[in-house]
Amino acid sequence: MRLRSFLLLVVALILSASVIRAQKAEQALRDADQAWFKVFAAKDLKKSVDFCLADGSVLPPNEPIATGHEAIEKNFAGFFALPNLMIDWKPTKTQIAGSGEMGVTSGVYQMSFTGPNGSTIKDTGKYVTVWKKEKGVWKVWLDIFNSDLPAAGN
Amino acid sequence: MRLRSFLLLVVALILSASVIRAQKAEQALRDADQAWFKVFAAKDLKKSVDFCLADGSVLPPNEPIATGHEAIEKNFAGFFALPNLMIDWKPTKTQIAGSGEMGVTSGVYQMSFTGPNGSTIKDTGKYVTVWKKEKGVWKVWLDIFNSDLPAAGN
Repeated sequence: MRLRSFLLLVVALILSASVIRAQKAEQALRDADQAWFKVFAAKDLKKSVDFCLADGSVLPPNEPIATGHEAIEKNFAGFFALPNLMIDWKPTKTQIAGSGEMGVTSGVYQMSFTGPNGSTIKDTGKYVTVWKKEKGVWKVWLDIFNSDLPAAGN
Repeated sequence: MRLRSFLLLVVALILSASVIRAQKAEQALRDADQAWFKVFAAKDLKKSVDFCLADGSVLPPNEPIATGHEAIEKNFAGFFALPNLMIDWKPTKTQIAGSGEMGVTSGVYQMSFTGPNGSTIKDTGKYVTVWKKEKGVWKVWLDIFNSDLPAAGN
């Protein structure tokens, strides 16, 4: 009986350690997602681009795919130039592969900016970001998003 | 010298085997992507929904997230109801985690359908699909896409 209790305790400890390790890994990926959000919301062009892999891609709505730092920088610069841009995003789902080198965050965004006629344009939508680890650091491989709102004119 | 040649040969064989295994795994994921495309292009509602995990999500432009088979079926049914819908998609990027249970396909799509006034509406864009293995079978966990074309009215 003593041995059985001891073995059950060992199994429980191993399982808890594995759950805690997985939770810590997911929190680290959520932290990367929100660290990227912070430099993006601050319109820090260099830091926002540096979160992306050299072969990373941003897939924005109503524009072609931007692959590589030069194309991504051009895309982000256009975005940051929107008058009075405010943006917020938060992950609602996180998944990391068992091998730990690949992960996904997905969540929701809100943004607003001043339109050509001076009125405030608001948007809300969702995103999926695919991350890869490079030298132990989470970097963006793919980032895609789209609006929840009906298309203009519908 | 003979031993060295033999060891080099063994290393070369192990490396080739590992490369071939990775290529086969990526091909299997591309095959899953295109098998999904085939039932989707054929407007087979049940088979299209069955490719998705029970907790899978479709994130369509200009609509809220659809999570779970019931919501996804409703979304696909609306899509399949578009008059003369034709759709094509192909993956241009594939990535599988080292642990083999999680993968991503990303590529381009073309679609067309007859609009309310009888004219043909054409769209082209890109997508990211996140796959997870369930009982050895690749299933869709997240699917998101958006158009390359300028927003209507812009």
